[in-house]
Amino acid sequence: MTEETNRVFEIVEYPEGETPDRDCFELQEEPVPELTDDDQVLVRTLYLRMDPGSRSKMVPPEDSPYDDSWAGDEPVSSGGIGEVVETTHPDYSVGDIVLGRHRWADYDVLTDDDDLEAVNIDAAPIRATLHVLGHTGRVAYVGLTEIADLQEGETVVVSSAAGSVGSIASQIARIYDCRVIGIAGTDDKIDYLVNELGIDEAINYKTTDDVQEDLAEICPDSVDVYFDNVGGEISDAVMNEMNTYGRIVQCGRIALINAEGGERPTGPRHEGLYIKKRLRREGFVVDDHEELYPEAESKLEEWYTNDQLQHRETIVEGLENTPDAFIGLFEGDDIGKTLVEVSKPPGERDDEIPSE
Amino acid sequence: MTEETNRVFEIVEYPEGETPDRDCFELQEEPVPELTDDDQVLVRTLYLRMDPGSRSKMVPPEDSPYDDSWAGDEPVSSGGIGEVVETTHPDYSVGDIVLGRHRWADYDVLTDDDDLEAVNIDAAPIRATLHVLGHTGRVAYVGLTEIADLQEGETVVVSSAAGSVGSIASQIARIYDCRVIGIAGTDDKIDYLVNELGIDEAINYKTTDDVQEDLAEICPDSVDVYFDNVGGEISDAVMNEMNTYGRIVQCGRIALINAEGGERPTGPRHEGLYIKKRLRREGFVVDDHEELYPEAESKLEEWYTNDQLQHRETIVEGLENTPDAFIGLFEGDDIGKTLVEVSKPPGERDDEIPSE
Repeated sequence: MTEETNRVFEIVEYPEGETPDRDCFELQEEPVPELTDDDQVLVRTLYLRMDPGSRSKMVPPEDSPYDDSWAGDEPVSSGGIGEVVETTHPDYSVGDIVLGRHRWADYDVLTDDDDLEAVNIDAAPIRATLHVLGHTGRVAYVGLTEIADLQEGETVVVSSAAGSVGSIASQIARIYDCRVIGIAGTDDKIDYLVNELGIDEAINYKTTDDVQEDLAEICPDSVDVYFDNVGGEISDAVMNEMNTYGRIVQCGRIALINAEGGERPTGPRHEGLYIKKRLRREGFVVDDHEELYPEAESKLEEWYTNDQLQHRETIVEGLENTPDAFIGLFEGDDIGKTLVEVSKPPGERDDEIPSE
Repeated sequence: MTEETNRVFEIVEYPEGETPDRDCFELQEEPVPELTDDDQVLVRTLYLRMDPGSRSKMVPPEDSPYDDSWAGDEPVSSGGIGEVVETTHPDYSVGDIVLGRHRWADYDVLTDDDDLEAVNIDAAPIRATLHVLGHTGRVAYVGLTEIADLQEGETVVVSSAAGSVGSIASQIARIYDCRVIGIAGTDDKIDYLVNELGIDEAINYKTTDDVQEDLAEICPDSVDVYFDNVGGEISDAVMNEMNTYGRIVQCGRIALINAEGGERPTGPRHEGLYIKKRLRREGFVVDDHEELYPEAESKLEEWYTNDQLQHRETIVEGLENTPDAFIGLFEGDDIGKTLVEVSKPPGERDDEIPSE
């Protein structure tokens, strides 16, 4: 094992208020790491989950007092799935499939501090534990049920609705008998939302003249819950159509995140709206709500098994293409979750002896 | 009674994005109104309470879909105190002192729909029921305890801290053993906050170079609760110093309210902050929380009686000066609550036969 080379991405340049590009990352080579202590596992990376929120780690550590910066304490990493190839951890054996926070690398050493968790490979396709049955599903569930306190029959708007979190949030709101309006930026996405997922209405913000006017027409009774993945101008339009006692769940800010490290974008002030309509806006990070994970997972699994919850994946092959997969998130063409396949999982490898 | 003339203010011009001026209002004369139905009282106006939030009623009804506009269903009016001079209401007798929503007028007919409420004239100076023991005190109490969910020992920033609601909110936060930083705009106000009310620190935003820098120095552990009466740039400064899980109570927006009816002001976007620091911002209107009034009033009375709660008044004499009293709110010199004395209360009138 130690004779093999490990490829590892490092950050070498900050995008400073711009969309990151390929030159921000450099692929280094190092020996495959060795276990040096108890309670460690060496994993071969199978899949890495691409999250737009990671963009906020691409700032110099001194500019990021509230986040671990990729250049600071935390290496370039993502949630991912790996296969245990060596272990000193009593809970994991060689061959186990595990979730954890993985470096963008062929191999990594993980401990409980990296959110290490066993995957039940018999329950569902293992990649589903990276999205609909895992992190992404939890984000949508916690955001709607805990932060928004969603009630049956409400009117819900979801931005980036064909994205990974957005498409699950839209479907959960439908399961709660809510009227759901999705906002997305391509006709393929609009088609997916309305015709595949059965969302009530969808607005293509790139081709419409006026998102707010569309919303006013579609939602004569205004918007009770806005599940916001984007921020910026689309959110301004929704804010102006909120109902009294409306709740805005600030889950993401993909329209603004590339400005981080540069000058902060400006927009219309909403202070008056908060008072007149008694609005509540709340940001959240799902890790703060671990006590809700068992409930979330049991619901998500039930809905997934009953075909009430669908999910699409975009798979990018090869560790070397991870930066492109990440940058692609900001180009807005992908539906559902983007994953990098670093190594095929056991059972799908070409060089394996087929099992009988 | 009906031979007498009643003077009544009407709105004749909209300020359209500007600070209102005297020409927006015109004093009309009409006969003193008569009672026409059961459950009415005719009151002589004693005091009118000047609230900056009323500015949002100075827009044409078609521009104000969420508020009653003074030009629409609702006449120019304020919370006030009156003396009953005629009555068909079984709960009120001639001579009773009552709270209610009064037109800016010498006389008005009030019903239960005008928030009619008896004043216990033996409990405290009657004007206190218009501020510290009434509406203003309730706003501060509900905003801090219900909306912000204030906890003992937290760090609290209050803007417009020497104003009526602000000065009560600052003192309540002190009673909760919180560290309180007030923001105000004159040296007199800073002196009042620190030396009379005993607030921990106060920042004069007009003379400091940088409110945010001051806050960073004064609050090394950041700000847990921001009780916001102003909005705009001061609030941006506080937002940047909020602690994780911080709460922003949107109680007022005096820095922005005069722009209403014009173009909406812009400012830096905070979507990223909401997520990174898990912030919650919530607007409220105290009328939605009537179930908390008994609790609020009993606490406020206790604190007022124990000298833990002080309050200043600015009294403007004469109905004809009501527009100037109202416009004065936006000039920022008044400490505490501004009241118009339309008619002196019984016991203080020059033409009365002194009681033995």
